[in-house]
Amino acid sequence: MKMAIVFGGASYEHEISIVSAITVKGKLESTFDLSFIFCDQDHKFYLIDSSKMKAITFSRGEHKKMGQLFMVNGGFEQRGMFGSKKYEMPILNLIHGGDGEDGTLASMFDFYSIPFIGPRKEAAMLSFDKHYTKWFAASVGVKTLPFEVLHKNDQRQLTTPYPFIIKPARLGSSIGVSIVREAQELDYALDVAFEFDEVVLIEPFISGVKEYNLAGFSARGEITYSIVEEPQKAEFLDFEKKYLDFSRSGSVEHAEVSEALVGQLRESFAKIYLPLFEGAIIRCDFFEIEGEVYLNEVNPIPGSMANYLFDNFSGSVQKLLGALPYKKAIRVNYDYIHSISSAKGK
Amino acid sequence: MKMAIVFGGASYEHEISIVSAITVKGKLESTFDLSFIFCDQDHKFYLIDSSKMKAITFSRGEHKKMGQLFMVNGGFEQRGMFGSKKYEMPILNLIHGGDGEDGTLASMFDFYSIPFIGPRKEAAMLSFDKHYTKWFAASVGVKTLPFEVLHKNDQRQLTTPYPFIIKPARLGSSIGVSIVREAQELDYALDVAFEFDEVVLIEPFISGVKEYNLAGFSARGEITYSIVEEPQKAEFLDFEKKYLDFSRSGSVEHAEVSEALVGQLRESFAKIYLPLFEGAIIRCDFFEIEGEVYLNEVNPIPGSMANYLFDNFSGSVQKLLGALPYKKAIRVNYDYIHSISSAKGK
Repeated sequence: MKMAIVFGGASYEHEISIVSAITVKGKLESTFDLSFIFCDQDHKFYLIDSSKMKAITFSRGEHKKMGQLFMVNGGFEQRGMFGSKKYEMPILNLIHGGDGEDGTLASMFDFYSIPFIGPRKEAAMLSFDKHYTKWFAASVGVKTLPFEVLHKNDQRQLTTPYPFIIKPARLGSSIGVSIVREAQELDYALDVAFEFDEVVLIEPFISGVKEYNLAGFSARGEITYSIVEEPQKAEFLDFEKKYLDFSRSGSVEHAEVSEALVGQLRESFAKIYLPLFEGAIIRCDFFEIEGEVYLNEVNPIPGSMANYLFDNFSGSVQKLLGALPYKKAIRVNYDYIHSISSAKGK
Repeated sequence: MKMAIVFGGASYEHEISIVSAITVKGKLESTFDLSFIFCDQDHKFYLIDSSKMKAITFSRGEHKKMGQLFMVNGGFEQRGMFGSKKYEMPILNLIHGGDGEDGTLASMFDFYSIPFIGPRKEAAMLSFDKHYTKWFAASVGVKTLPFEVLHKNDQRQLTTPYPFIIKPARLGSSIGVSIVREAQELDYALDVAFEFDEVVLIEPFISGVKEYNLAGFSARGEITYSIVEEPQKAEFLDFEKKYLDFSRSGSVEHAEVSEALVGQLRESFAKIYLPLFEGAIIRCDFFEIEGEVYLNEVNPIPGSMANYLFDNFSGSVQKLLGALPYKKAIRVNYDYIHSISSAKGK
């Protein structure tokens, strides 16, 4: 089965996307005929030889010596002196953060009728901005923590009681996130967050809250759920820890949780997933507070595709590839123009 | 001043986009050096000769004989036997509905660093879905009518009292919209709306409500407002009436409204516009109910760019072109990969 992994991107998460791609390659190369398409920070695409799928290829700029690709209707094209070669295969969108998770590439793949695993543009946009995720979750009946939004030029006056978490609204991987315990830490934490986004979110910080991660996808009307993981407990994962997290490929113990909680987590997952995330393998990160489940965030392109949470990761990817949503084609018949032209006697 | 109008698109509003483009051409060709780029329903781009900018060019398929263009970094490219020609100029995105107003082309223009007039992807997605527009308006303190959302497979049980309006969530130009006065009209109206979208919105229908349209844009920190129009009063504009509306080029009388109401409309417009719609000329359609202003909808690419509402339309376009937002470039320095590689001793 052919598939191309698209990774990189002009994003703060460019480097972890490379790590993710290398990890996923290791998990899938025995069952898939994989190609690797790197999107550099200037938005040029390169076809990377499988043997060159190492981090230093990119940090050293060696990808620039490899074949450049262009996105065209139906796939990617490599142009040569004597004609062009077309690469037509489904894509695994593995660009974390901007370009991949903000709906940009989804728009382009849809426009060019290139089938892909990943969130469609609307799903991407709603999960990329944590502020919109709150709206969306509320509309499907999934709880989230209360929040405040602050824009860069707003007065820095907050009503959330200390301690709280400050997050850039549109970044993943804990970049720019701080816990603020008292007023004197506030300005610095806001400055850090505003380095990365014009909009930040403020949420209560609940010490010792239980966290559970659940990944999954829907294919042909049936949801495949991963195991439930209780992620490693640091106060929150900073970027370097998360970075290493993107290279995870071992399998994980199912968290010691009650059947009832698994049921609640799955129910919340399904409400979020359907029908917005069709075509994507997502990981939802939840809190459990006093027996109730709260959505923390949706990762529509989770680190290393959350491969370590699935019993049969390659089988899961195959299953989803066989059931990707397609955009309904709109046919134009020019009825209105014909009727206007005939009314004008032309 | 060079500018290319991009129009057409694989959208239910494909034909009205053609009409819009022809109208805008008439308004701008004396002050701009215009090019015309047609996006056909198969997502191929063609460079249209100015003399062929007539509706029948497209309904007869004559555009297929003209030069095909490809979107590449920095602009469009025409490929020939002996090399390629690059078209690098700012774009006026004049594709109504899908492709243009849903964020697809905005994503592509941003990805390829092509400057353009039109909503950025986030603005497009939030205004394209009327349901998200409600969330957004509430978050910036602008009122909208109460609403219900129904998905295609939901039970058809509503709580909104009759009469109400049913609208597909993601279409403009009144396509698929019905007024439902009694229970026996409901099923048919829902069937019509679900022809065009999986999600519909139900809103109370307020007979004789006052409607006001206001267009504008922001450039260099200053908002330019159009005049306020009280749109022609049909119960609501059906598609054919709206279609003719897209060819409007004459100027319009300023509605007979109080200074205070103009102030309220402008204040609501500014709340909606800033900072989400930077780079676009939008038209907001408002209701006035008991002295209060309600947002009905945002048209981020209004029919014929609402040229008829501006005293100096070409001057307005010039002003905006000189102040388009650019996406902040993200530079990748490979610090993490370097640090990991050195930790591994490679």
